[in-house]
Amino acid sequence: MGTVFPPQSIVDIQNRIAAGETTPRQALAESARRIDADDEELRAFVARAPLPADVPVDGPLRGIAVGVKDLFDTFDLPTTYGSPIYRDHQPRADAAIVAQVRGAGGWVAGKTATTEFAAMNPAATRNPHDRLRSPGGSSSGSAAAVAAGFIPVALGTQTAGSIIRPAAYCGIAGLKPSFRLLPTVGVKTFAWSLDTVGLFAPSARDVARFAGILSRRPLDHEAGLDIDRLRLGIYRSGIYDQLDPAMADALRKGARVGEELGWFVRDVEETESLRTGREIQAVIQDYEGAMSLLDERTRHRGEISPALLQALDRGGAIEATRYDEARRSARRARRATAELFDNVDLILAPSASGVAPLLSEGSTGDPAFNRLWTLAGTPCINVPGLRAPNGLPLGLTLVARFGGDRLLLAGAVRFEAGLRRT
Amino acid sequence: MGTVFPPQSIVDIQNRIAAGETTPRQALAESARRIDADDEELRAFVARAPLPADVPVDGPLRGIAVGVKDLFDTFDLPTTYGSPIYRDHQPRADAAIVAQVRGAGGWVAGKTATTEFAAMNPAATRNPHDRLRSPGGSSSGSAAAVAAGFIPVALGTQTAGSIIRPAAYCGIAGLKPSFRLLPTVGVKTFAWSLDTVGLFAPSARDVARFAGILSRRPLDHEAGLDIDRLRLGIYRSGIYDQLDPAMADALRKGARVGEELGWFVRDVEETESLRTGREIQAVIQDYEGAMSLLDERTRHRGEISPALLQALDRGGAIEATRYDEARRSARRARRATAELFDNVDLILAPSASGVAPLLSEGSTGDPAFNRLWTLAGTPCINVPGLRAPNGLPLGLTLVARFGGDRLLLAGAVRFEAGLRRT
Repeated sequence: MGTVFPPQSIVDIQNRIAAGETTPRQALAESARRIDADDEELRAFVARAPLPADVPVDGPLRGIAVGVKDLFDTFDLPTTYGSPIYRDHQPRADAAIVAQVRGAGGWVAGKTATTEFAAMNPAATRNPHDRLRSPGGSSSGSAAAVAAGFIPVALGTQTAGSIIRPAAYCGIAGLKPSFRLLPTVGVKTFAWSLDTVGLFAPSARDVARFAGILSRRPLDHEAGLDIDRLRLGIYRSGIYDQLDPAMADALRKGARVGEELGWFVRDVEETESLRTGREIQAVIQDYEGAMSLLDERTRHRGEISPALLQALDRGGAIEATRYDEARRSARRARRATAELFDNVDLILAPSASGVAPLLSEGSTGDPAFNRLWTLAGTPCINVPGLRAPNGLPLGLTLVARFGGDRLLLAGAVRFEAGLRRT
Repeated sequence: MGTVFPPQSIVDIQNRIAAGETTPRQALAESARRIDADDEELRAFVARAPLPADVPVDGPLRGIAVGVKDLFDTFDLPTTYGSPIYRDHQPRADAAIVAQVRGAGGWVAGKTATTEFAAMNPAATRNPHDRLRSPGGSSSGSAAAVAAGFIPVALGTQTAGSIIRPAAYCGIAGLKPSFRLLPTVGVKTFAWSLDTVGLFAPSARDVARFAGILSRRPLDHEAGLDIDRLRLGIYRSGIYDQLDPAMADALRKGARVGEELGWFVRDVEETESLRTGREIQAVIQDYEGAMSLLDERTRHRGEISPALLQALDRGGAIEATRYDEARRSARRARRATAELFDNVDLILAPSASGVAPLLSEGSTGDPAFNRLWTLAGTPCINVPGLRAPNGLPLGLTLVARFGGDRLLLAGAVRFEAGLRRT
């Protein structure tokens, strides 16, 4: 078992640079050193960039090494989308958010492992907390690299549960912002109605800082928000019989933490529209995925894993009328989600059924608990802080109304502190 | 002045193939022959495909030569996005809809000229009706190639007015379907909230046939629709002082045709929300465009035209708060547009201020009359059939509610027949 470094905090690095305690070059060199030391075993990165001769010394991301999921195009590093079809693919341009990272003075340290086209076929990455376990997917390498202390922040994407779940399994903060808050331009499309760019960092405070910089909005400022008296809804879904006992207990702990914070805690029930939304998310994902990857599944069938090929062919067989009906259900679910927030400010829900699965199970875990929030486009965050009796991380999701990213992050910072005290 | 061939109709070609009067190979060869004969002067195509040895003989698009705007990726033809930055760019995969064209047995005859990144810098294409005039933009080559009778159908995109306007200037049908009815995967993004894939054909009936095949929905079937008693709203916008007298007259003729068809014709006023929507479309376009092309405008400034560079830099200077306010205005405009259709089934509006501008003016025309319908995501079609006193085509737009593509097309077929009788 290799070394796990302590987490790198973007807030801390920025403070130390501002105080003259470190330089951007030293901060980046430390990230590079850690990756060098341990990634051969962890396998979070699939391509590395050399430390630049001229390290940017301006911009809010100076000194910040950023892991970029290998689903985002980069002009200077190959981009495989996790597929052998693109094994030697070199994009011409950066994805929009990668260009933003560089424009803000950040360093793209390398490309992090993704499952095949961000679907279910596992990447080779291991979980830093137990290297016989999966880091989750599809943003496997980004979550693992942050959790291993290699880098302070990373980019990922979520179509069903690909940010929230790996963040939960790896014990870090993962933010899926409001739909299209961060641009998907230059990211390989799976399902255009669902694909969402998101962020990883060790803590809610760190991910808020990163989100504030990339969104160009004051997402890490609490000014004007009343975090003392939030209304917290404990979400009650029809699939909670799938929760491991440790996760059911974590959810109870989360409710208790809410009360300890002085928040108003109440249950929120999954309505019929929400249940339908959760269920038909897969129809939209499958239909759009089959269309997005039509060229690949036509001309490169032999280079697609059997599981994905089956999913794509299944999606290609869905009638347009069924997809249209699913889109109408999705609109109803979005409205029903918005109505939930008439009565609560934040919702608490499980990020996954339990702890990370063993690699030997051949799965990155089940996104069932994430599907509704992706479909709804509502911002959500995996809040770390709890552990199962076996010591592995357990993640809880906080959700806010569409556009409520700032309230979500401020609440998550407070909530994470509470969880870590339990 | 080169030869202008009579239009090629997809419906007609399909009928003749079915009747054994022609073969798919003969139909494609005729398209290729016409392009060979005249495109050196018209300059609709920027890349050509050789006629394949094995012509597909199955699929609804067998025998159909398709022009593909050079904004769509093609695995077998270079794709420049109209920019010297991509002069030698060869994508790895087909755009989703291009793969659909091929899967349906269609032949990608070549890539058609686009303005630079589908923005305002003109392509070299000439208008088939007057070669000293612009075919409009940004889907310049697609519209011109169909209008010149080279090919029966073509693919385009619209972010402000890039389908409707060139269709109007070229005297053909141009369909901008409901937002995301056709996939944008593999199309170079300018503004993700606005970019819409659309289609060109000589007539409404032809474009309906093509749309039905590519959308996998029965868009060219009138069954169950009552086209005899439609309610037609004549749209009254605050910018009609910009209409040329010929276009103002065309709009009056359109209203008369509606009455002659037995439709209920009434005026529909531009409300405050709609006016704001029309005006803030440019904010969204500029902001998103600056982000989508951030890599290019950072690393390739010298290879971007001054006009576009200015627009991108202007977009990059827009504050996120102003963009968010524009998005809220867009939502209000979408709701207001939906409310218009509580009282009417279709709306009639001008497609442009008048006829195609002269090439010497250096402009592809003004999209002011198209912005609202793009922002709203409502399906609309340029209906050809009228001409100005100088003989050049004038186009009218029909608009339907979001998702009402089938009604729109059925109404447009009827309306076009009425226009052609005037």
